Amino acid sequence: MLKKYFPILEWAPRYNRDTFVSDLIAAVIVTIMLIPQSLAYALLAGLPPEAGLYASILPIIVYAIFGTSMTIAVGPVAVASLMTATAASAVAVQGTPEYAAAAIVLAFLSGLMLAGMGLLRLGFLANFLSHPVISGFITASAFIIAAGQVKSITGIPARGHNLVEILENLWLHLDKFNWPTFAIGLPALIFIFWSRKKMKALLVSFGLKPRLADVLTKAAPVFAILVSIAAVKLFGMHEMGVSIVGDIPNALPKLAVPPFDLEMWSSLAVSALLISILGYVETISVAQTLAARRRERVDPDQEMIALGAANIASAISRGFPVTGGFSRSVVNFDAGARTPAAGAFTAVGIALATLYLTPFLYFLPKATLGATIIVAVLSLVDFGPLKLTWKYSKADFSAILATIVITLTVGVEAGVLAGVLISLFLYLKRTSTPHYAVVGRVPGTEHFRNVLRHKVETLPHVLMVRVDESLYFPNARFLEELIYDMIARHPEIRHVVLVGTAINHIDTSALESLEQINSRLKDAGVMLHLTEIKGPVMDRLHRSHFLEDLTGKVFFTQNEAFEALKSEGAGEDATTSSGQDDTAPKSAPAGGLKPSAA
Amino acid sequence: MLKKYFPILEWAPRYNRDTFVSDLIAAVIVTIMLIPQSLAYALLAGLPPEAGLYASILPIIVYAIFGTSMTIAVGPVAVASLMTATAASAVAVQGTPEYAAAAIVLAFLSGLMLAGMGLLRLGFLANFLSHPVISGFITASAFIIAAGQVKSITGIPARGHNLVEILENLWLHLDKFNWPTFAIGLPALIFIFWSRKKMKALLVSFGLKPRLADVLTKAAPVFAILVSIAAVKLFGMHEMGVSIVGDIPNALPKLAVPPFDLEMWSSLAVSALLISILGYVETISVAQTLAARRRERVDPDQEMIALGAANIASAISRGFPVTGGFSRSVVNFDAGARTPAAGAFTAVGIALATLYLTPFLYFLPKATLGATIIVAVLSLVDFGPLKLTWKYSKADFSAILATIVITLTVGVEAGVLAGVLISLFLYLKRTSTPHYAVVGRVPGTEHFRNVLRHKVETLPHVLMVRVDESLYFPNARFLEELIYDMIARHPEIRHVVLVGTAINHIDTSALESLEQINSRLKDAGVMLHLTEIKGPVMDRLHRSHFLEDLTGKVFFTQNEAFEALKSEGAGEDATTSSGQDDTAPKSAPAGGLKPSAA
Repeated sequence: MLKKYFPILEWAPRYNRDTFVSDLIAAVIVTIMLIPQSLAYALLAGLPPEAGLYASILPIIVYAIFGTSMTIAVGPVAVASLMTATAASAVAVQGTPEYAAAAIVLAFLSGLMLAGMGLLRLGFLANFLSHPVISGFITASAFIIAAGQVKSITGIPARGHNLVEILENLWLHLDKFNWPTFAIGLPALIFIFWSRKKMKALLVSFGLKPRLADVLTKAAPVFAILVSIAAVKLFGMHEMGVSIVGDIPNALPKLAVPPFDLEMWSSLAVSALLISILGYVETISVAQTLAARRRERVDPDQEMIALGAANIASAISRGFPVTGGFSRSVVNFDAGARTPAAGAFTAVGIALATLYLTPFLYFLPKATLGATIIVAVLSLVDFGPLKLTWKYSKADFSAILATIVITLTVGVEAGVLAGVLISLFLYLKRTSTPHYAVVGRVPGTEHFRNVLRHKVETLPHVLMVRVDESLYFPNARFLEELIYDMIARHPEIRHVVLVGTAINHIDTSALESLEQINSRLKDAGVMLHLTEIKGPVMDRLHRSHFLEDLTGKVFFTQNEAFEALKSEGAGEDATTSSGQDDTAPKSAPAGGLKPSAA
Repeated sequence: MLKKYFPILEWAPRYNRDTFVSDLIAAVIVTIMLIPQSLAYALLAGLPPEAGLYASILPIIVYAIFGTSMTIAVGPVAVASLMTATAASAVAVQGTPEYAAAAIVLAFLSGLMLAGMGLLRLGFLANFLSHPVISGFITASAFIIAAGQVKSITGIPARGHNLVEILENLWLHLDKFNWPTFAIGLPALIFIFWSRKKMKALLVSFGLKPRLADVLTKAAPVFAILVSIAAVKLFGMHEMGVSIVGDIPNALPKLAVPPFDLEMWSSLAVSALLISILGYVETISVAQTLAARRRERVDPDQEMIALGAANIASAISRGFPVTGGFSRSVVNFDAGARTPAAGAFTAVGIALATLYLTPFLYFLPKATLGATIIVAVLSLVDFGPLKLTWKYSKADFSAILATIVITLTVGVEAGVLAGVLISLFLYLKRTSTPHYAVVGRVPGTEHFRNVLRHKVETLPHVLMVRVDESLYFPNARFLEELIYDMIARHPEIRHVVLVGTAINHIDTSALESLEQINSRLKDAGVMLHLTEIKGPVMDRLHRSHFLEDLTGKVFFTQNEAFEALKSEGAGEDATTSSGQDDTAPKSAPAGGLKPSAA
């Protein structure tokens, strides 16, 4: 039990020299990668650079205690940082203590929500976010982030919460373009972009070992930082309009409980919920991907608790919302991390950097950090899902497209909410009209098939209908309409047989619909029968009066029902319908019974 | 096509002397019943009495043109009137022209929404309201309405939007109790209540024909009205604090387009949506119940359009939201109405009453109308569903209970919204963890069954899993977790076979999950196979790359998969598992594979 909530108790006793060495190597590589990222994402969130470092120390240590993934690396990530900026700037002005407080409150609320949902096993709430919505949202957010960072590499002050606003502002302030900033930003952008694509191959062709080449490639942003610091210092570019990072306190964060301010908390609650759910979805996806490769297991509810604890830790150590990031986790995994201790060592690395490296970062130009962000987020842009979805499902395509368009034109929160609502809407629309078939018997067998697709026997006075979906409130009314419609069209029907092969559940709404159908059919002189009702469904029906009130019988198989009702027909024989002709709406005898809408 | 949108073109040409006589008789009976009801529900909605009459003229005529139900009677109903009062008093003070305008705007917006949803075939939106939520909501509303009308029959000014507020106010103003009002209210209440229960039987025992006795019983509220008017006039009770109806303009309403005021419209939009959806659900339920008895058909989308048109008509004729009422429609049906022309005749009856009877209503005490309302709504109280649901489904019970409690303590809109959200929440929770089974072959057959319930053969290196639900975004993640968990627990597995007998649909999210599963299993050295995938699902999969990327095969039957994979086992034989022991979590060989959570 204790091990369930503190997975560290599971792996720590087995910790040994081997795992220590593996973890340490991974930690060094991840630390090198994380320093520029932490600074950059703090900038993106509109916070002072140290907030990014703080968010990469305590949260990682706390995650190591609670997390079940052996390889995930938590910390600030691009999309959550953008959402933090959006939410915080709605309640405070960037640069003020209130703004920093808002970011802390966002992390704290996200943490409480995640931990609460995890403890209450509400992880399924993340299912509200369908894959198309997430992919559309991330692609659109990447464009907003990249456009926003044009400011960092050109000096043009372009603010805005959506692409339209940002582009408008860039256009309006084009005159503020700053050549020295661009002289740093553009080369940094090109170099970091190039290093991602080609540097490793080049280094290998120079004779370096692939592993070393890989580490050096990952350190490329650090190299860009060093060169740009040197350039600023050398040419005094900070006096030519180049924004620099400036003073960073070279101390560990003072721990503090986030300020309680009901008004601020309630105005940030929805944003915190979105940040926490999106963060969780990213974390659990990455965790599962990496765990599956090594046949390790992650516990989704415990991951929710762990991510929640990490966010609470971030809040009390003056950080901002953190997530299990994709790229850093993959680096951690590839570098050979074996346990969450690798994360703890990374935290030590970042802490040391905070204590001893920050003075060297005084002249670091924000343009270099902006370039880091742009390259990082452009790798998130992916139109593949849009193309695939267009082919696979027009309904899902409309959800993804709406998410992208609304995110770009209105903003991140509206975009993700619209995506969720559209998915739910389409889902309810689909499940509210399930597939169904009027069935008949394949001659000479005991098999029953759709009258529209197969040549089958039917009885003129018997309607056998199979609904291919559980019966619950979204489709309860549909079933009523379907059956009333059919008996109104075919006055010769005296028996309706509901075939339950695909019914896994009947909820109270559907039960009431069945009772209504039973009593309305009774009024119309028609009997209702059931067949092939599954065991658990039958158990539940026994808890109601339905089976007692049922005008007809419960048959075990469709064939039993067919045989029993055949003899009740007024001397009429079974007719054989032709399954070929299923387009023309023939006003047929019983054999031609057709679903009206499917 | 024209007949589809104007069902009157369907029945009017067949209209004849017979149907005319039937319709006329029904219209007279409904008119007698509707006059007191219209006045009473206008009072409940906080509007002058003529608004109730107006809402029973033009809307009924318009419904006769657009409606597909032969017997439904539209007009003001109790719950919609309460919701109108709640919504209107949130934007204006009762008695002011703004208040009346708000009621008109509510009708207009409801009408536009219904007509729009009907034209766009969005009738399924009504499915958001599950039966338990509706029944809980109506019971709770009935209590609020009845408590609110204690004011009418006692003179104690008790306002409030929920039961708590009303009871509080009644208590606070107990000193305003007015004996003359009570002297009218109490006898009226007792008489109307008694007439509903016993009057018909009494009259029949006096030798009247049942049909006449029935008509006289329905006229009982009219009788109460006449007696109470006489009492007020005779004793001058209106000068002793008894509220009377007063002047009612004896003219038909002047038609006018509702005032456009963006602020008012947007603040009433949510209320209008709730009123329209609840009104539609009541209307369609009543329409279907009555139509099924005579094997007639109603078109749910066209009913939405018709109800929308009726509400728009109500708005332009200075009424308020209207609904197809249950009791009046049953009266109409029982009285023999054959076509919507009966409604048109009723409208003429109400119009005549408006023109010629209103002067006689000057001394009508509101206490009598209050008594009419109390008796009408108490018949809506029904704790049956609460009891049945408790037995049938604890999840649905919690939805109904929450709806009742929130409606009583917070208000009608909060109650119905909470009910909808709780239903959706429970629904998503359930579908996000579908039932599944690890299956094996029943020895000597080609049938495959749950390893936990049956004695079946399994292959140690093959996991065959059947998921009893379509695969879509709420459960996409579940499937991933399920499979990763199983292969992590059982390192001997080399093949996973997904059995698709119960999969009716695979959406894009689930497709991506399957692709993830396929590629993660590949990384872990496990092949993924499919079997018994349904035709339409297969057709759709062919539109993606999934089948090309699939590491394993698509088998036609489970047995084919079993036989083919058997030979791929490393010389291992099939083992037979015992289905008995399904409680102890044995760390078993392949035969003991168990779902972890189901």
